[in-house]
Amino acid sequence: MKEVVLKMLKQGSPEFVSGEEICRSLNVTRTAVWKNIKALKEDGYKIEARPRAGYLFKSAPDIPYPGEIREGLVTRVFGRKVYYYDSAPSTNVLARELAQKGAPEGALVITEEQTGGKGRLGRGWHSPRGMGLWFSLIFRPPAAPAQAVQLTILAAVALTEAIRKETGLPVGIKWPNDLLFDGKKICGILTEMSAEMERVNYLVIGAGINVGQSARDFAEEVRDTATSLFLALNRPVSRVKLLQSILESTEKWYDRWLAEGFTPVLGRWKELSVTLRRPVRIHSFNETWDGWAEDLDEEGALIVQMPDRSRRKVVSGEVSLRLDLT
Amino acid sequence: MKEVVLKMLKQGSPEFVSGEEICRSLNVTRTAVWKNIKALKEDGYKIEARPRAGYLFKSAPDIPYPGEIREGLVTRVFGRKVYYYDSAPSTNVLARELAQKGAPEGALVITEEQTGGKGRLGRGWHSPRGMGLWFSLIFRPPAAPAQAVQLTILAAVALTEAIRKETGLPVGIKWPNDLLFDGKKICGILTEMSAEMERVNYLVIGAGINVGQSARDFAEEVRDTATSLFLALNRPVSRVKLLQSILESTEKWYDRWLAEGFTPVLGRWKELSVTLRRPVRIHSFNETWDGWAEDLDEEGALIVQMPDRSRRKVVSGEVSLRLDLT
Repeated sequence: MKEVVLKMLKQGSPEFVSGEEICRSLNVTRTAVWKNIKALKEDGYKIEARPRAGYLFKSAPDIPYPGEIREGLVTRVFGRKVYYYDSAPSTNVLARELAQKGAPEGALVITEEQTGGKGRLGRGWHSPRGMGLWFSLIFRPPAAPAQAVQLTILAAVALTEAIRKETGLPVGIKWPNDLLFDGKKICGILTEMSAEMERVNYLVIGAGINVGQSARDFAEEVRDTATSLFLALNRPVSRVKLLQSILESTEKWYDRWLAEGFTPVLGRWKELSVTLRRPVRIHSFNETWDGWAEDLDEEGALIVQMPDRSRRKVVSGEVSLRLDLT
Repeated sequence: MKEVVLKMLKQGSPEFVSGEEICRSLNVTRTAVWKNIKALKEDGYKIEARPRAGYLFKSAPDIPYPGEIREGLVTRVFGRKVYYYDSAPSTNVLARELAQKGAPEGALVITEEQTGGKGRLGRGWHSPRGMGLWFSLIFRPPAAPAQAVQLTILAAVALTEAIRKETGLPVGIKWPNDLLFDGKKICGILTEMSAEMERVNYLVIGAGINVGQSARDFAEEVRDTATSLFLALNRPVSRVKLLQSILESTEKWYDRWLAEGFTPVLGRWKELSVTLRRPVRIHSFNETWDGWAEDLDEEGALIVQMPDRSRRKVVSGEVSLRLDLT
């Protein structure tokens, strides 16, 4: 009912909506209306109450509540179903459970804070309350497991474009799928899948985007390597608007992938990459070596040219950009 | 406690073990001993009770109880942990849940009947009570998702060798991983995995082996295409012994794969294949076409030579052997 009261107030704005009218429409008591208004205020909505005039909607909080996400969202599938949690261990873990139980393609799982956020290769991801977008999307692509990597590359492209659009920042992609601004990490992506040998059952793509952190919000050990949109822009960024933009950009690229295949995605990834055509240091399977990042292949592997001109294919690991050689 | 009583009786056999001795060892009453003996008899164990002499273990039923599987099993990891169910919807579904909760590599999930057994590509698998081996194994390979297909090929090799060893039947592998005798299906394999882009979290390989069915136990629509070991041999086959052989053969091939990689597995698969070097009809993605099955590649794809000498790579679908052209 809270949602319906909010909708009435939003529709009435900038006029007051009388409490009596709400009672009549919803067939509830004055006390029930008052309780819902109180709950909305606790959720962060600004609502003015004036005796005899009623209630006036003034503003919504920048919190990714399902209703706020859907308002003005131009997508067919992505974000149409939203699972919102005030707090969660990990949206990827929840999304996999929901997908297992049949949650549809495009479903969004989002939380205000992750208490056990996951990064690549078993690492953690710090996800403090209200400071970022911590979410996962469910995909059910008609694809074989070997093609799943194409969607993680697609997600990096879609997220980069959305962040660029909303902020104007020249964010770039570091292989395999970290988004950087000015050499510092602003977003990480973790893809997980359930598959048979011949087809993917479902794929979960999780992202953590640092939006509102100040320098002191980052733990000391990552302060030199991580940043936020707030720090990069020196002004706040709306999480709800950014998320809508991400959902729209993801749907656009996913539809294009379904229709045209991987080639356009791969081409755009190469344009947005900050790794390619650069000297790099590779850390992979307990080995460290230097080379020149030459290309990304159809399987998402980084093709690195070695000092002796031979080529190595890197499928897993870390890449550092070697600034000493530029 | 039932397990301990059984162990005492087995150790005592071929002598009687007195009830009093069991009471003393386990520090329980005569009634408790009697109840456990009764339960063991209900499980199918043959135990002779003689006044004043005690109890004599005579034989175990051919049911894959955890204790029976482990007795005489020569493995380090596979089948060391057994999840046994009298009835289950699908061992693959259970195994994935158990793996998600941390079940170790080599864990075996087995049931007497599946009420919702799964085959490849969303199909069903008929798994009547006591008639076969319906089980799944959990793997945690240090591998990327693209390599997972190597383990489903490995499983086909390991199962074929175990069945050949226990029965002497020249069972062969039909691409991708059905085991056939005399052109009829005797075993199906379904592999599922949970993975990140760079590494497999866990892999579940499920198998259904038709062991004891008579012709009338098969539904009419599969009577021409399915068979059992009993029908092929015209004598019963021990499910427990066959399963032990499978666990040993799987561990042997898995260890070899870890040490030497995919090449030996692939080579053995080719030897055991009934698809290669044969005219075939392919049904893949709503298309049907004829060709010559030439090879299996490193990714588990079937390489088919077309009438015009061009080659096609088949990654998913069905293959029929064309007997008309042999």
